Amino acid sequence: MIYNDLVNILKDTDRIISTENINRDYFTDGLKRIYGEADVLVFPVNTEEVSCVLKYAYKSNIKVTPRGSGTGLVGGTVPTERGIILDLSKMNKIINLDKSTFTVEVESGVVLNQLQQYVENEGLFYPPDPGEKTATIGGNISTNAGGMRAVKYGVTRDYVRKLEVVLANGTILNLGGDTIKNSSGLDLKDLFIGSEGTLGVITKAFLKVIPKPKKSISAIIAFDALELGIESVNRIINENINATAIEFMEKKVIENTERYLNLKFPCSSGNSYLLLTFDGETDSEIELNSNKAKEVSAKSGAVDFILLKDKEEINNTWQIRGALVKAVEVISEEEPVDIVVPIDKIVEFIDFTKILEEKYKIQVVSFGHAGDGNIHLCVVRNGIEESLWREKSHKLLKELYCKCYELNGVTSGEHGIGISKKEYFLRNTSNKNIEYMREIKKVFDDKFILNNNKVYIQ
Amino acid sequence: MIYNDLVNILKDTDRIISTENINRDYFTDGLKRIYGEADVLVFPVNTEEVSCVLKYAYKSNIKVTPRGSGTGLVGGTVPTERGIILDLSKMNKIINLDKSTFTVEVESGVVLNQLQQYVENEGLFYPPDPGEKTATIGGNISTNAGGMRAVKYGVTRDYVRKLEVVLANGTILNLGGDTIKNSSGLDLKDLFIGSEGTLGVITKAFLKVIPKPKKSISAIIAFDALELGIESVNRIINENINATAIEFMEKKVIENTERYLNLKFPCSSGNSYLLLTFDGETDSEIELNSNKAKEVSAKSGAVDFILLKDKEEINNTWQIRGALVKAVEVISEEEPVDIVVPIDKIVEFIDFTKILEEKYKIQVVSFGHAGDGNIHLCVVRNGIEESLWREKSHKLLKELYCKCYELNGVTSGEHGIGISKKEYFLRNTSNKNIEYMREIKKVFDDKFILNNNKVYIQ
Repeated sequence: MIYNDLVNILKDTDRIISTENINRDYFTDGLKRIYGEADVLVFPVNTEEVSCVLKYAYKSNIKVTPRGSGTGLVGGTVPTERGIILDLSKMNKIINLDKSTFTVEVESGVVLNQLQQYVENEGLFYPPDPGEKTATIGGNISTNAGGMRAVKYGVTRDYVRKLEVVLANGTILNLGGDTIKNSSGLDLKDLFIGSEGTLGVITKAFLKVIPKPKKSISAIIAFDALELGIESVNRIINENINATAIEFMEKKVIENTERYLNLKFPCSSGNSYLLLTFDGETDSEIELNSNKAKEVSAKSGAVDFILLKDKEEINNTWQIRGALVKAVEVISEEEPVDIVVPIDKIVEFIDFTKILEEKYKIQVVSFGHAGDGNIHLCVVRNGIEESLWREKSHKLLKELYCKCYELNGVTSGEHGIGISKKEYFLRNTSNKNIEYMREIKKVFDDKFILNNNKVYIQ
Repeated sequence: MIYNDLVNILKDTDRIISTENINRDYFTDGLKRIYGEADVLVFPVNTEEVSCVLKYAYKSNIKVTPRGSGTGLVGGTVPTERGIILDLSKMNKIINLDKSTFTVEVESGVVLNQLQQYVENEGLFYPPDPGEKTATIGGNISTNAGGMRAVKYGVTRDYVRKLEVVLANGTILNLGGDTIKNSSGLDLKDLFIGSEGTLGVITKAFLKVIPKPKKSISAIIAFDALELGIESVNRIINENINATAIEFMEKKVIENTERYLNLKFPCSSGNSYLLLTFDGETDSEIELNSNKAKEVSAKSGAVDFILLKDKEEINNTWQIRGALVKAVEVISEEEPVDIVVPIDKIVEFIDFTKILEEKYKIQVVSFGHAGDGNIHLCVVRNGIEESLWREKSHKLLKELYCKCYELNGVTSGEHGIGISKKEYFLRNTSNKNIEYMREIKKVFDDKFILNNNKVYIQ
């Protein structure tokens, strides 16, 4: 019935798939842990179609789950109450690049890779760089995706000038503006960024780009212990060295990934590493910064400093960094965590994970963005029997998130809350704040049509 | 009666002033153009007192107008429906500077000057730099104040990690977090930034600071015509020169200010000027950037490039830039405008102001932030008879704002909307957006207690 109605509305059958023909991948997300079901999968090709589908769904009280590439890790694209899956991936045009205002206008189904390459070919640069390059820009905006370059350049939120969104009732809104500054009325745009599809469907984005830095280098700094490395991060930031990325990782995680990729990490001394990049306009500028990083990290007891000069070595190293999670995944089921804590609490938090490892006899692999306190943890199953694993990992996670909030951290730095982190998010967030989020939900979607059951929604 | 109630609630008489004893300055703002009236003026000293006053006002349906230093320029602090003026200026403590997380915690009545000096004494730097240094941080956040350094460093919004706000019904909320990244639920914090006191009273802010750049230089670039200067701004941005400030101004505005201050602008060639600053860690870094600016501006036909080296010369030049408005004010009543347009539309917009000058025979003085399209205009009365001035300047402004939106600009880049720009803002903003702003107002202040009649409120 919904199928027939949508065929009538969109005058098309190719882009409307009925429940029995929907590939199961559309019922889940990138983690393939939680599955839902839906009546119809639709691929709109423009904003008007999105609006028509939503108007219909709103009128008929049918739930709608929007999705991009479905690469999320928290169940945000799982259809929990059947209805319509609204897949934006066919709205993937880069509409306009305006070099005089440094703005690129894209449909929300444009994939990150596609955007980054497009603007780089034009001598420009879109700094946000989450690991998953096949995610859509709409998805990136919906989770306020971060990534490794956030230390210097900020996160997705910092690059969204304007959004076109469609509300649950089909209303099309344009939020934000073409200008750099704006102090004209309530900031509705930022409300939609990071809202995980609960307030509206993002159909178009006007993103800020910057001139592409001409030079870039990477460096590895080795320490005997994590706390020395983290201490050195504070010194590095304090010196205004302006690193693009400051990642931390420990030896055992690297070794596991070396085996998985059959690649060699270029540094064998020490137990704990910082991996940094510097970018800029001239060799002398970035060398000056990397020299300063070497100098100040020595004060924190660095045992090695390796400037990566060889292209292959740089690629291998970043490939290893990029595959840390995947290398864990292939050996065992894991629960990804992307807690953020204030940068001076990283060591205390990692130490606590080691206490939990002992207590629950469950391996916790940690690494992440030292420059902004965003820690990626994997709680690894390692052959534990299913029901025991569920029970134990759940208890461990409860303690982990509780500690995170004790240290003034928050549940997620870039993945979002979705379904899988909702329990921990709600448990640790003030009820008053949750209540106001729910009231705002009602302003934009009073029938709870869009992405119901997720994030803050009861 | 309100007076007696508040005396009972706060158990104090010194900080509660009844209507007949209120200095008239509290009925207006920095522009002293629009005046209101109020029953009581209260100076709370902590968040609990703010909450108590608001609980009482909410219960008794009494309107409340919050204010900081009252330096605003759009009537945002004018009490339009009597009631209570809530003056936050006694909540002026810098509570904590955390050097390990680069965060400073302040009460909202702290004045910008005070904050900037405090963190600079500690080797740190709070980049937002609006012209009015006696404004409070609460006021800066309420208008999302910008300033000259926004080109490189962004605006107030970019430096607010966390806010404590008190809602109309007395509820205290903590919004945002101590972490650098956050993707955990709806972004309520950004909704309050720039909301001009319509959603809640800001009582505390946790602000990001950065290490203080060690070096800074300024340069003047002279052009025969404004359009050449603006063309050169695009080249400068394109070269990743990373200027801290890029201001533009025209000869006649400078001459007026030279007379007013009895100071000499160090450049006499050309008719139109860019004033730039560069900051960084080393002399060689900033010299490299200023040399590049010299090179690329030559391509746009710059007729002079003066690197300001002498301290007095630098001070004089920035004093002139800082006093451009004041110099106009002393000779005539003026209507300040802080329209923003996309940076490639600056010339077209300024040209249009010249058409309006001709058409209405009213002087329009313009200058502003070329690096972000934020144009400061003064429409100058110059002895025109009162009622004619009202009529003509109103017509002129209507056309001016209409043009601004035609060029994809917005009403205000940093001053806010308040009362005086409400007409132009509402006329040019989509009704749907305004409607959703009003619905959000109801979520946080269903009785319309706080700062009523301003910005988007009917």
